[in-house]
Amino acid sequence: MRLSTDEARARFRAAPVARLATVNPDESPHLVPIVFAWCPPDALVFAYDHKPKSGRPLKRLENLAARPAVSLLVDEWAEDWDRLWWVRADGLAEVLASADPRRETGLDALATRYRQYREMRPAGPVAWISVHAWSGWAAAG
Amino acid sequence: MRLSTDEARARFRAAPVARLATVNPDESPHLVPIVFAWCPPDALVFAYDHKPKSGRPLKRLENLAARPAVSLLVDEWAEDWDRLWWVRADGLAEVLASADPRRETGLDALATRYRQYREMRPAGPVAWISVHAWSGWAAAG
Repeated sequence: MRLSTDEARARFRAAPVARLATVNPDESPHLVPIVFAWCPPDALVFAYDHKPKSGRPLKRLENLAARPAVSLLVDEWAEDWDRLWWVRADGLAEVLASADPRRETGLDALATRYRQYREMRPAGPVAWISVHAWSGWAAAG
Repeated sequence: MRLSTDEARARFRAAPVARLATVNPDESPHLVPIVFAWCPPDALVFAYDHKPKSGRPLKRLENLAARPAVSLLVDEWAEDWDRLWWVRADGLAEVLASADPRRETGLDALATRYRQYREMRPAGPVAWISVHAWSGWAAAG
């Protein structure tokens, strides 16, 4: 059964990890897991916690700049397929400038969720994804 | 640390669920969880178990036909981030014709992995993804 927008958002927000899909310059998709936080009015935010050692820009951030449409997925696995569900968030991503006040908002939200971010605030880029569609499915009600 | 191709493939194959990213006609990415099996020489296969009620083609299969480049992800979440890892498989997908012998190979491999597919063999389309790159990362060795 399809999940309502509110139910889909609630399940997504409660998950500790999501998968971020972007599109590469050659039009193939790219996938990576992310930790994230939700920020009002309806955004998902994530940060890069390590600075890339090589100084090379990160693929996920290069992709975001060139093609801001992203998709994120949270899903629950169970041996009993009656317990399966997933939620997808589709949105547009921005990599925030360091002076953007949403950067601090996002980092605060991440620190609230993750001990590791309380212990060491990410110094890398922060991405802000304005969600325009929540969709979801659950095998059972 | 980066995982070797063999280690990445082994971890991916052992997972019960993966996330499939395709690209929509408007060039935004699309994401959905799938159950899958690995087939030699180096392919991932999945099947659609329910026929769509509306008769409308499935988005993931429409996307595959138009843009066969796909990415699949398996990831492990842990509160302790030293235990995190992920593996990505990049490949090219084909939706198999019903006479293609790989259809039976794939359905057999799926039935071996999943009780539900032993109890009811999928009647829907079968997709065959020839993997051309395995990549992966683990926080600890």
